[in-house]
Amino acid sequence: MKDIDNNILLVEESLYATANGYIGIRGNFEEGYKAGFETIKGSFVNGFYDTHQIRYPESAYGFPVVGETMVQVADTQKIQIELDSEVFSMDSENYQIISREFDVHKGITTRQIKWTSINGNTFLITFTRMTHFVHLELFVIHLTIESDTYSGPVRIKSYIDHNFQTRKDTDDPRVATEHIEPLKIQNIEFNGEMGLIESQTVNNHLKMQVAVAHDISGIWESKDQMLVFNATMNMEKNRPVDVTKFVVFSDERRNLDYCKFGRNQLKLHLSKGYGALHDEQKNYMKSFFEKCEIIIEGDDSLTKAIAYSQYQLLAASGKDGVSQVAAKGLTGSGYEGHYFWDTEIYVIPFLTLTQPELAKQILKYRHNILEHAKERSLTLGHKRGAKMPWRTIAGLECSAYFPAGTAQYHINADVAYAYLQYYFMTHDTEMMQEFGYEVLYETALLWLEVGHIHGDEFCIDGVTGPDEYTAIVNNNYYTNAMAKYHLYWTVKLYAQYKTENMSDNAIAEMKWAAEHMRLPYDEELNIHKQDEQFLSKAKWDFENTPKNKYPLLLNFHPLYIYRHQVLKQADTVLAHFLLDEGHESVIRDSYHYYENITTHDSSLSPCVYGMMASRIKESEKAFHYFMKSVYLDLHNLHGNTKDGLHIANAGGTYMGIVFGFGGLRIKPDGIYLNPHRPKEWKSYSFKFVKDDTVVKVSVGDLIKIQTSHEIVLRINHKVYEISDEIEVPLNEH
Amino acid sequence: MKDIDNNILLVEESLYATANGYIGIRGNFEEGYKAGFETIKGSFVNGFYDTHQIRYPESAYGFPVVGETMVQVADTQKIQIELDSEVFSMDSENYQIISREFDVHKGITTRQIKWTSINGNTFLITFTRMTHFVHLELFVIHLTIESDTYSGPVRIKSYIDHNFQTRKDTDDPRVATEHIEPLKIQNIEFNGEMGLIESQTVNNHLKMQVAVAHDISGIWESKDQMLVFNATMNMEKNRPVDVTKFVVFSDERRNLDYCKFGRNQLKLHLSKGYGALHDEQKNYMKSFFEKCEIIIEGDDSLTKAIAYSQYQLLAASGKDGVSQVAAKGLTGSGYEGHYFWDTEIYVIPFLTLTQPELAKQILKYRHNILEHAKERSLTLGHKRGAKMPWRTIAGLECSAYFPAGTAQYHINADVAYAYLQYYFMTHDTEMMQEFGYEVLYETALLWLEVGHIHGDEFCIDGVTGPDEYTAIVNNNYYTNAMAKYHLYWTVKLYAQYKTENMSDNAIAEMKWAAEHMRLPYDEELNIHKQDEQFLSKAKWDFENTPKNKYPLLLNFHPLYIYRHQVLKQADTVLAHFLLDEGHESVIRDSYHYYENITTHDSSLSPCVYGMMASRIKESEKAFHYFMKSVYLDLHNLHGNTKDGLHIANAGGTYMGIVFGFGGLRIKPDGIYLNPHRPKEWKSYSFKFVKDDTVVKVSVGDLIKIQTSHEIVLRINHKVYEISDEIEVPLNEH
Repeated sequence: MKDIDNNILLVEESLYATANGYIGIRGNFEEGYKAGFETIKGSFVNGFYDTHQIRYPESAYGFPVVGETMVQVADTQKIQIELDSEVFSMDSENYQIISREFDVHKGITTRQIKWTSINGNTFLITFTRMTHFVHLELFVIHLTIESDTYSGPVRIKSYIDHNFQTRKDTDDPRVATEHIEPLKIQNIEFNGEMGLIESQTVNNHLKMQVAVAHDISGIWESKDQMLVFNATMNMEKNRPVDVTKFVVFSDERRNLDYCKFGRNQLKLHLSKGYGALHDEQKNYMKSFFEKCEIIIEGDDSLTKAIAYSQYQLLAASGKDGVSQVAAKGLTGSGYEGHYFWDTEIYVIPFLTLTQPELAKQILKYRHNILEHAKERSLTLGHKRGAKMPWRTIAGLECSAYFPAGTAQYHINADVAYAYLQYYFMTHDTEMMQEFGYEVLYETALLWLEVGHIHGDEFCIDGVTGPDEYTAIVNNNYYTNAMAKYHLYWTVKLYAQYKTENMSDNAIAEMKWAAEHMRLPYDEELNIHKQDEQFLSKAKWDFENTPKNKYPLLLNFHPLYIYRHQVLKQADTVLAHFLLDEGHESVIRDSYHYYENITTHDSSLSPCVYGMMASRIKESEKAFHYFMKSVYLDLHNLHGNTKDGLHIANAGGTYMGIVFGFGGLRIKPDGIYLNPHRPKEWKSYSFKFVKDDTVVKVSVGDLIKIQTSHEIVLRINHKVYEISDEIEVPLNEH
Repeated sequence: MKDIDNNILLVEESLYATANGYIGIRGNFEEGYKAGFETIKGSFVNGFYDTHQIRYPESAYGFPVVGETMVQVADTQKIQIELDSEVFSMDSENYQIISREFDVHKGITTRQIKWTSINGNTFLITFTRMTHFVHLELFVIHLTIESDTYSGPVRIKSYIDHNFQTRKDTDDPRVATEHIEPLKIQNIEFNGEMGLIESQTVNNHLKMQVAVAHDISGIWESKDQMLVFNATMNMEKNRPVDVTKFVVFSDERRNLDYCKFGRNQLKLHLSKGYGALHDEQKNYMKSFFEKCEIIIEGDDSLTKAIAYSQYQLLAASGKDGVSQVAAKGLTGSGYEGHYFWDTEIYVIPFLTLTQPELAKQILKYRHNILEHAKERSLTLGHKRGAKMPWRTIAGLECSAYFPAGTAQYHINADVAYAYLQYYFMTHDTEMMQEFGYEVLYETALLWLEVGHIHGDEFCIDGVTGPDEYTAIVNNNYYTNAMAKYHLYWTVKLYAQYKTENMSDNAIAEMKWAAEHMRLPYDEELNIHKQDEQFLSKAKWDFENTPKNKYPLLLNFHPLYIYRHQVLKQADTVLAHFLLDEGHESVIRDSYHYYENITTHDSSLSPCVYGMMASRIKESEKAFHYFMKSVYLDLHNLHGNTKDGLHIANAGGTYMGIVFGFGGLRIKPDGIYLNPHRPKEWKSYSFKFVKDDTVVKVSVGDLIKIQTSHEIVLRINHKVYEISDEIEVPLNEH
């Protein structure tokens, strides 16, 4: 017992969180914690949120006044087990964790504890958990207990606990700072079969239900804000006993008749039983990995770590159009459960390449909130267009610090970019007709509003680029280059997708703006300037900045940071990655210049520098960044994994292989590959889906492509028509 | 009664506020208000404040977490009068305000009401009030009542009311938004002579006392959070009765034994009596105006309005080194009673020219808070120097919106400028030795920290200039030009005033920085650029901005405003006014360029444009702006006079005459005059004090200078040695 570290457990609560895009349950211990141990409990329903008033000590016009925050829902993890007339708990001296595993290929987590009672009987207790990908409403805990020596009763108390607080940390802007009142119980009910709690958020009155049943008989009782299921099993030595807890979440955002739905689903799952559900989950994961599997030959541990990232991407992704992908997925309350550009730039690429139907669902979300985005545009002083919120759940701009929030207008182009990548990959004209082009057009209109003509150039002033250590600047290269691309494609697709509400004149304006977009460039350094003034600022004194002063945002005033040439994350380099345009030498020189002054204080950064290191053929650097990305959460490299996993970084891990080492790009005219191989690896392989066909790319001494249908690929800038399998020479860096 | 407008009364509460730099009492009605009428009660002690936690919805390192707010102290204005067995009140149909006057030459306000009782007796009721300039702790209400017809008892209930709320308005950033808890009563006490309430602020535990006595006998009683003095006078028709209420405020920031001090002073004042106090006040005001009187020949109303401004400047100015000059003086709680740069740039010039000993007291304040400013500098990431708070009471930075708060580094140079102006005017070497040079030096050090060398120029990035419609820019001309001046004089005076703690190396750095300061200039327009990027931004669409969209800050998001060429207030033009340097053509062209795009949404703006219109010989414009400045509060031109008077603008009114039309400048080598005369005036005159001698400047067809001691003046660039009186020809514009 003595060797269990509370801090490690907190991190593991995030790492062993299971989720399925609809629900997410942190890896808290069913039996509770040792006295004095801290735990961050968390059960979440994606997009299930409450509103609150945002108060500013000094407000200004247009500051968001209503915030949206993902709320905790009832905790269903708690199970008290009485063995040998003693309650099994961490407080005991004889509590020993044998194993804790995340089997992403089965979609389950397991935890085994060896525990010895005061009477000297030893038990092996195993918890298996899953949030189900086929039945999104379902969370399951399967418990088995065995003993070589003990025969006798096993008493179970299994809880629905509605007595909790939402986590906050007023000192760290990366955690929710608003106190959100917990859900209010509307109804508590139980019968022989199940226990149910209906509850409602305090301010926006959203309703949900949690329904729980077990596959053994027992008696429910209602206690203060809790329902407790009491059951006794008889155990014989060497004969394990087991029990399954079935938990069904349902809410009115997805289902107006959420109560009935929840009850019915629970009955179905209960009758189906644990074994069948377990198999369904396993089959789902099998089919999932068949489309996206990545193997690093000879490094099982790394292969596993990558698969783990892929599970987390799937687990974070809302699958219903109502919800999207929170910055921490459903693994913690960090960033209040908000959706950022992380989704479009870091998560959707994985989905577009391996699960395009799911990508489409998530793309749809931006169309669902388009009316909010149009209203926001008006509030910001613009006469037309849509301004996507920097952070939101249901569509309201929830950013309470505009220099690094609302000012990040680039989110409009990021959304457009994700739409276009999906479109180039799938040629899904239906999507474009249904909602895609409308989003492209409305978000593109905003550029005409925020930009202006100066001299003979189109300039965009007073915005913040991706790098949050630089704020409110003129002609941020990333923003301008992305806006140019956004405008260009909006113009190009206009004839095909235009509707009555759209204007030829606006399209003409867009064309001019795209053609005359200012892209600041410094001749001497041969780099694109991050913004008009960036290069004239003082350089950050890295030499005299001790390690404990990172991340800078927690140790320096924003003004001090903004005044210096220092980056939180990739900015110009990210534009070079996404747009892949410009002279090779500019891309290379920009990379070196900016890499030197980037802190990577954002988890969105290392993967980009990794991919671009591959791009400029700096293989060792690429490998270094990739490894940082893979292990960012697994090794808690940012120190805040306890608040939830960095989902964008999980996307970055996937991209590190496919876009980085694989050199894959999705372009209007098809898929490009330009693979290389880190010297550390004998070979590696990855997969993607094109036109419903899985394509496997293996990179060893040669590049091998395997497919079951005909596909055209551009490999090392040569066009290949492949019908089953080919091998192509590898360009070594 | 029907014709009394509540909104006008609210404005008049500010306009008829009396104050003396220590206490300030808004012009609330003693008898109370008609049911449903709103009133903003307010009694303040300068620098008497409470602290509160500042909470941010999204915080960052170095954001101030403790705010300071001027609190309301006990209200002593309330007097209930029973006449003819009826309580005199506004609710009556027969309530009629006969006159309300502010006699600034006597330092009193009077209010006369004619009132008829139900029985048909008519009374003339007169309230005379003063906050005493000789006895700063003293507030007096003198009441007289007369009637042609009534004989009988007059019953008085005179209150110390401790039951109040601090005003807040969460929608207007110019008003306090934090809820401040009212003072807590520590002790209530009365005896035959006086009533006393001691109280304490809730968070920082500052203590104060209010003590009240009357010059008639009566009985005190204590009610819930109030003391009430009950007295009856007998009145005969045609024979007025009167009573005086003496109120003494004392607090522990000024006097550790504030309780005893308050009692003793009250006794003294009571024994001296109203008449003598009234005379003392009148004499004080006489001597005050002897040094500063301004007369516009033929326009008594304007002459009065200017005198009113001068009274308010005196009334706002703290006279004890502990306190300074709040943005609204002591006339309201707007801006939380904070001290800004307003004092140094807009108020101190008046004091330096007419009351240098008081100017020195106020200058001292910045030295008193120097340690706070040094700490703040470290918090902001700097290694040395002092950063003056943008807004504060006791020295903590209280700005909760840094882009238009903390980022205004220019306040350091503004403070230095005020010190230097005083020094050039007085040659007060003692002040420099005692504290002045230390302030100059420490605040100058900060420029070395915030600036950096780029190419061969010294650049200052990431700051905000005076214009709050442009934020966080590089090389703001005002900031750089003022910093250059600040550095230059710190270097120049070093040899004379240096102390052990100062460094020759730092002085060498300062010298280099001053000599290489970047001052952005646009060749084509022949103007100084407000900042490096200002001229490349889009121009504000004034044509399509309706009147009700001003002030812009209440109708547009900061980002939208920052993105445009639009000014809240004078910026480059203010630098040209203060520093008076550069080519005439640049000054003129800058004026025209910036005037065109300035909204004057700040009350600090019109006076500057007025003075500079004089400077560039645009007389009509100068007159136009001057009149705006004179009547800004008197005609409630900004619509928010109810929250308190705009004290900086009162300073601007004085400056409009003296620096504007009079063309006066204080320079190292003496005083310059360059008077002209608006065509609307036959003549005007103003005064200033040089070396304890009053100098009178009259500008009619000729310029006449009158003095009792020898003085050297530079008039229209010629040197005159004047011993009694001379006349000089007027340069007509």
